[in-house]
Amino acid sequence: MSGNVVVLTGGVGGAKLVLGLQELAPPDRLTAIVNTGDDFRHLGLHISPDIDTLLYTLAGKANAEQGWGRAGESWSFMAALRELGGEDWFALGDHDLALHVLRTMRMARGDGLAQITADFARSWGIGMAVLPMSEQVVATHVLTDEGDLAFQRYFVERRCQPVVRAIRFAGADAATPAPGVVEAIEAADAILIAPSNPFLSVDPMLAVPGIRAALGRARAPIVAVSPIIGGKAVKGPTAKLMAEMGLIVGNDAIARHYAGLVDGLLIDQGDPPPAGAIASARTDTMMRTVEDKRRVAQAAIDLARAVASA
Amino acid sequence: MSGNVVVLTGGVGGAKLVLGLQELAPPDRLTAIVNTGDDFRHLGLHISPDIDTLLYTLAGKANAEQGWGRAGESWSFMAALRELGGEDWFALGDHDLALHVLRTMRMARGDGLAQITADFARSWGIGMAVLPMSEQVVATHVLTDEGDLAFQRYFVERRCQPVVRAIRFAGADAATPAPGVVEAIEAADAILIAPSNPFLSVDPMLAVPGIRAALGRARAPIVAVSPIIGGKAVKGPTAKLMAEMGLIVGNDAIARHYAGLVDGLLIDQGDPPPAGAIASARTDTMMRTVEDKRRVAQAAIDLARAVASA
Repeated sequence: MSGNVVVLTGGVGGAKLVLGLQELAPPDRLTAIVNTGDDFRHLGLHISPDIDTLLYTLAGKANAEQGWGRAGESWSFMAALRELGGEDWFALGDHDLALHVLRTMRMARGDGLAQITADFARSWGIGMAVLPMSEQVVATHVLTDEGDLAFQRYFVERRCQPVVRAIRFAGADAATPAPGVVEAIEAADAILIAPSNPFLSVDPMLAVPGIRAALGRARAPIVAVSPIIGGKAVKGPTAKLMAEMGLIVGNDAIARHYAGLVDGLLIDQGDPPPAGAIASARTDTMMRTVEDKRRVAQAAIDLARAVASA
Repeated sequence: MSGNVVVLTGGVGGAKLVLGLQELAPPDRLTAIVNTGDDFRHLGLHISPDIDTLLYTLAGKANAEQGWGRAGESWSFMAALRELGGEDWFALGDHDLALHVLRTMRMARGDGLAQITADFARSWGIGMAVLPMSEQVVATHVLTDEGDLAFQRYFVERRCQPVVRAIRFAGADAATPAPGVVEAIEAADAILIAPSNPFLSVDPMLAVPGIRAALGRARAPIVAVSPIIGGKAVKGPTAKLMAEMGLIVGNDAIARHYAGLVDGLLIDQGDPPPAGAIASARTDTMMRTVEDKRRVAQAAIDLARAVASA
């Protein structure tokens, strides 16, 4: 494969596709634009869960079984925090803390999240560009039957149990894309949307006007990889959330959600293609092994090529 | 022993005397006023080394062999910090971090260091009052043959190797005593100065005008425990520093240093009493066991009683 590939991604699910892309293309051709709608301040620290998950994954440091955080993590900080009565609903590993402490310190002295993220990536030998979607605060809030919950309160503390009525992205209207985001989209030969949660992980990026506009005028084809497999979401709250929002779980709803934005939808081989005009292709989209990830990435790129030449 | 005892203390050496006092008096009669001249910001975190040492010591969590930090500490954070190129000259243990993160978070939202310290002490079941000397920034700087060094740079990073010319306490002139400090001094029946470094650990407290004034008008006798044993300092840079400042290491210099402030000096049984008018008493001032600490505390209290009734 040649050409520049940009992928818009959330955390765990998206990181698998990014790993697959790494198998296909040299790192200097790859850019990941990462959701920061999950970012929040906790115990005075700036935490960027999706960026961290992607960095840990690309650096080979992720805890794959657990689905978040670092492999070989230790938990002394949390034990000491509990002794002191500190809030312990969000687990911060001892290694993980280094990322948050350094990021917070650098932000406090005026460094941008894009530069900080780039420096972390370089420290760990990650060659591809990892860009936050924005350096301004965009905060995903979930309006539930229990009231308005900041994303991590809904996702981690309440384990996605409240019934979702609507989702909003506080600050998105006024946010601008982070340095490099628009340039990467403009220089892309293919733009992929990872199989992250469309409503919680991808929509915050699309809610930033400058990103939406750049995607709208992009010369490159845009292909989304559906998070649906066999009528279910692979992981996380996608299916539950879709049902609560009155959507029939399936690729029809995903295609409608991305209508007007994407040129193609890559779906699982066991699912029917979506209704409507959108181009689609099928493969086994369950990504367990490196080969799986490579196959899905290749299929997404192939679909992008096909729609570009159609 | 009855009555209220106030002790002015730095870190490790002082904490031993405070432990001894705990053996003699109920906790609601004891107040430790603690040096904060060593406090600094590191990686964006507010660190209060002497307060932390005292809290760890009183809570039975101190690493006695190492002389700082917590027993059973782990170091995952430091390992991860090094991977990311973070400054690693000051060791922050994983458990220890909880104290710094919570303190920094609470200070950022406007809580005072006195209240924060009191809450930490209560969390750990420490009954005596532990008060920072001030809630304003007083920063000990060491003027050396290598230039002006902030205290921790001199003490930790440079291991006290530079030759000391002078010491200053930036901000002390404008600082006020923390809530409770003056009240404790006024209500004291005995005031002790712990065998901490007079120049680096006690002087920052005396440099706060409101503390110096409160001590000057205190009705209670003031007794210092000398840090000199057999013409040497037990621990830390006291003797080296005295020599560099042109002082003969011994109790004469200690007595002169505290002249006009203290009514009595408790010295080691092996050392000659200081010249001059100051009252003195002797005991074995090396504090290894609990019994040692209790003995030294009792001797200091006895000397305070003796000078009060003289």
